[in-house]
Amino acid sequence: MPGGTLSQSPRLVTVGSVALDTLRTPHGVRRDALGGAAVHASVAAAFFVPRPGLVGVVGADFPEGYRRLLARRGIALDGLESAAGRTFRWSGRYRGDMAVAETLRTDLGVFAGFDPRIPEGWRDAPFVFLANIEPGIQARTLERMRAPRFTLLDTMNLWIATRRAALLKVVGRVDAVVLNDQEIRQLTGESSLARAARACLRLGPRAVFLKRGEHGASLVTRDASFHLPAFPTEKVVDPTGAGDSFAGALMGRLAASGDVGEGALRKALAAGVALASFQVEGFSLERTLRLRPAEISKRLAALRAMTRF
Amino acid sequence: MPGGTLSQSPRLVTVGSVALDTLRTPHGVRRDALGGAAVHASVAAAFFVPRPGLVGVVGADFPEGYRRLLARRGIALDGLESAAGRTFRWSGRYRGDMAVAETLRTDLGVFAGFDPRIPEGWRDAPFVFLANIEPGIQARTLERMRAPRFTLLDTMNLWIATRRAALLKVVGRVDAVVLNDQEIRQLTGESSLARAARACLRLGPRAVFLKRGEHGASLVTRDASFHLPAFPTEKVVDPTGAGDSFAGALMGRLAASGDVGEGALRKALAAGVALASFQVEGFSLERTLRLRPAEISKRLAALRAMTRF
Repeated sequence: MPGGTLSQSPRLVTVGSVALDTLRTPHGVRRDALGGAAVHASVAAAFFVPRPGLVGVVGADFPEGYRRLLARRGIALDGLESAAGRTFRWSGRYRGDMAVAETLRTDLGVFAGFDPRIPEGWRDAPFVFLANIEPGIQARTLERMRAPRFTLLDTMNLWIATRRAALLKVVGRVDAVVLNDQEIRQLTGESSLARAARACLRLGPRAVFLKRGEHGASLVTRDASFHLPAFPTEKVVDPTGAGDSFAGALMGRLAASGDVGEGALRKALAAGVALASFQVEGFSLERTLRLRPAEISKRLAALRAMTRF
Repeated sequence: MPGGTLSQSPRLVTVGSVALDTLRTPHGVRRDALGGAAVHASVAAAFFVPRPGLVGVVGADFPEGYRRLLARRGIALDGLESAAGRTFRWSGRYRGDMAVAETLRTDLGVFAGFDPRIPEGWRDAPFVFLANIEPGIQARTLERMRAPRFTLLDTMNLWIATRRAALLKVVGRVDAVVLNDQEIRQLTGESSLARAARACLRLGPRAVFLKRGEHGASLVTRDASFHLPAFPTEKVVDPTGAGDSFAGALMGRLAASGDVGEGALRKALAAGVALASFQVEGFSLERTLRLRPAEISKRLAALRAMTRF
């Protein structure tokens, strides 16, 4: 139940935005759809690990139906603060090949003063996903966790450009980062992705998860490289949340196994690719909420078959 | 020996340019290096199939040393015509991440009036690679072959833009095409690569080989998709000929096996990715000429390991 501070620690805690999204793609429009990085990540994670914990903030206008929806998906909401004011709103448009989101409007609302409150019982969570938020908040979150076994950080071009020092500091403290090709080039100054991934490992993390959109995803560690193609879907309806869904499934899969070795990281990346491939098939969470576990297994088998020679 | 018209038919015939390349990359400069699509493809193919046949034209200035070099690599040169005039010269530069070649100068020389002469004994070759040349020449080449079992066509942005009708006609007559991501988008008008590949299959070919540079390569057929990552080399010295090396190795591997089923196409693509990954490690043919078969096997094993989960 919301508000408890002594609830049992989830195996995965995700900290990030909870939002109301207004989305325009060549396939239509949605207003005030449930969104935000922590939401997409937690919904994806819940396919793999029981009771993933969500830490975020919403305003008084956050629909009770959305809160119930998240609870029904098995997401622990003790860390979801409700503050006076408006919920974070993002309005974006995708055109053409929908590779890049064009932000039409951002209204931070209660998210502007966000200071993550980790429920006391959650501070022992072994897996922590720092979704894309301001690096200082990511650092404070880490300080509030006792001894996480595996931490993953996401970020974006804005923080790389404007909060570089703070970002590099927190990147140096996490186990892994998840970046797209533009972000890793911007972060490292390397144009070759192979070189950029190596440069990223030198910043501290032991694993780099690279999101390459229609080119798939890669895992680079000091010892190995792993790559999976994107599932070749022809019906991309809305890319919103694909990256968060990828990271959430990845962390959910890892948290479920409790293993963070190379083999487990690879399986986790595959889970991420599978979930992201469904996420883009509908607006917002529409497709993901209809997703059945058997469909995930089938897509994982298809990804395996796609790389066998 | 050059000039014979009754020589035994090679299993693979490649038709395309033989050139003298002047190359500038961040790693240095080479002048009048042996190049051209048919050269790079044939040198790569010769690692897999004995006596690949090369059909092309050179001028009186073509160094005898280059002809000997090709002969020593096991390439059959009966189809390499020597004409009065200058050999085709290309001068190009790569900057930054070297993803795109900037043409500084093109001097067609004897290549301007190129009309492929297929030695009589070669007209029964089962595998034919139409390297990137004007589509009308590709069509004439096809007409001169008796009943090839598997034909692959390469092309470029120039022909897609200026010789579209002729290109679509010859694309409709080959078994497979090899294109990069920009070319397939330009050819089909589809921005999503998955959709573009499907659109390409509707033009006639039963297989589409997609070159995605640092993102690897894909094979799309009516029944399946296959993808391999690029080998994550950090030392790209000169990308010239990588695509031709890819296609040549692919066709060499197919011609060697004699099999054109899905499994064989996948193994062929893997051979292509492996050869291209070596090709870029040196200027022009420098690295490829030093390549040992054991190195190819090792890289194929690495590519397999990179996609296992």
